[in-house]
Amino acid sequence: MNAAAPTFDARLRQSADQVKACLDALLGDTPASDEIARPPALLAAMRHGVLNGGKRLRPFLVMESTALFAGDAKAALRVAAALECVHCYSLVHDDLPAMDDDAVRRGQPTVHIAYGEANAILAGDSLLTLAFDILAGPETVLPDAVKTALVLALARASGLGGMAGGQALDLAAESRAPDEQGIVTLQAMKTGALIRFACEAGAIVSGRDASDRARLRQFGEHIGRAFQLADDLLDLTADAATMGKATGKDEARGKATLVACRGPDWAEGELARLVAEASALLTPYGDAARTLVEAAAFVANRTH
Amino acid sequence: MNAAAPTFDARLRQSADQVKACLDALLGDTPASDEIARPPALLAAMRHGVLNGGKRLRPFLVMESTALFAGDAKAALRVAAALECVHCYSLVHDDLPAMDDDAVRRGQPTVHIAYGEANAILAGDSLLTLAFDILAGPETVLPDAVKTALVLALARASGLGGMAGGQALDLAAESRAPDEQGIVTLQAMKTGALIRFACEAGAIVSGRDASDRARLRQFGEHIGRAFQLADDLLDLTADAATMGKATGKDEARGKATLVACRGPDWAEGELARLVAEASALLTPYGDAARTLVEAAAFVANRTH
Repeated sequence: MNAAAPTFDARLRQSADQVKACLDALLGDTPASDEIARPPALLAAMRHGVLNGGKRLRPFLVMESTALFAGDAKAALRVAAALECVHCYSLVHDDLPAMDDDAVRRGQPTVHIAYGEANAILAGDSLLTLAFDILAGPETVLPDAVKTALVLALARASGLGGMAGGQALDLAAESRAPDEQGIVTLQAMKTGALIRFACEAGAIVSGRDASDRARLRQFGEHIGRAFQLADDLLDLTADAATMGKATGKDEARGKATLVACRGPDWAEGELARLVAEASALLTPYGDAARTLVEAAAFVANRTH
Repeated sequence: MNAAAPTFDARLRQSADQVKACLDALLGDTPASDEIARPPALLAAMRHGVLNGGKRLRPFLVMESTALFAGDAKAALRVAAALECVHCYSLVHDDLPAMDDDAVRRGQPTVHIAYGEANAILAGDSLLTLAFDILAGPETVLPDAVKTALVLALARASGLGGMAGGQALDLAAESRAPDEQGIVTLQAMKTGALIRFACEAGAIVSGRDASDRARLRQFGEHIGRAFQLADDLLDLTADAATMGKATGKDEARGKATLVACRGPDWAEGELARLVAEASALLTPYGDAARTLVEAAAFVANRTH
């Protein structure tokens, strides 16, 4: 290893800072072309929803999967920011009283607590819309065919058949517990789809062929499952102060998770297996894949 | 006039039927490629939100503005369906208890009444996402540069600086009445932006230059203003049975409208002026613009 190479943690922090700066610039108070005005209350609610920290794992995966193929880092940053808008919109809506009814997120009041429910709904809507604006916008310098592919892939990962559908299954699970296959589907949609997109995005941005896309996609599926298992384990063991949000909620709600079905020992073993398989998928790329391999381990072993 | 040409009403109905069939097909229960599953409750809520009738005015404008330039009617239908998804998502969210709190829309229970608030939030989110899915999808056969332009224009018309921003201004207006310029901005965003997009879309779909785009855009701005004036007049005069939704709400809420500021006589005159100016904008296109000119009059004179 090159002694001057930044550590994994440093790379993650650096990418989080870049994404935050990009989002901050996108959410300035000057209307973009074709925009009529930017209402201050809505803008403030959007900024609260998207600029309040977080690990920015999904954007990091977009940037590192692009770096794997030596793709355009500036374009990747824009795609990363778009994906983060989708992720953050989902958190804003998920926190609403009609959904999970959470008052705290990352140690801060949630958007509807700070700005009211109506503004929170509209802020989520506008962040989702902004994601596609960013992908299609002229400052994202990519061939139109690549932009179209990104819009389609992000929409499929986010909507009825992806993340939003997973939220709907999650709601339904509160009144009728799913079986194990049901939990796997739910989690693949609710958290897996965006993580899968994050990894596949690098291959799309870099104009790679279907085989590279499929490989990165599969890598993303593995670490998406690892992410959710780690999350379910953490909900069982961590305290609220460490997580910056309420914990133990799954158990209190009798929520079905694979950890609850099969126990923490199984989950630890499954996590190790998923990380090993994910890493093996990237073997053909050699040392260039080191950061992504580290990301797989990071996802599985995170403590908050 | 060709004796065999369908009347304006017949064209409007025919286009509404086509759009409905297109949306019905898009919202089947088989997952599209890259979708993991389509949760039945969410799908049903989306279908309720988008298939419950309506004049389908915006889709009609997309199709007729494309026909003006002899653009691809099949592609226009897809763009029209995408726009209708955005319009309908905005209605689903607007009807929520935290927003306008409406129980009836087009004579039917609103989505949150029929499927619960959480599913209504997710159905709106998923309809918005589907709009961009449709524009970017392979079944929309258009050059990638055109698709990218459509995604960007629709996002700008729908988000922070367009429709959603207009909703936020509308909420703020309930606690502090805007002045006339404030009302104009609010309405240009809340209802104007999507109607403007509908008219401009035909020029984009047909690959026309900036001058045609600007002309159709301006036409759209005029009829957007006419639409809102007619709506405010109707709220003052129509009854709930005719409108299929609650009326007289603006006055009951002390809501600021231009009709309230300047009176119905001024509004009638302004409507006539807007229709005349809109029609004049299309003079260069001759008889090909007849249906769009009729649409301008229809928007101004509608009784429900």
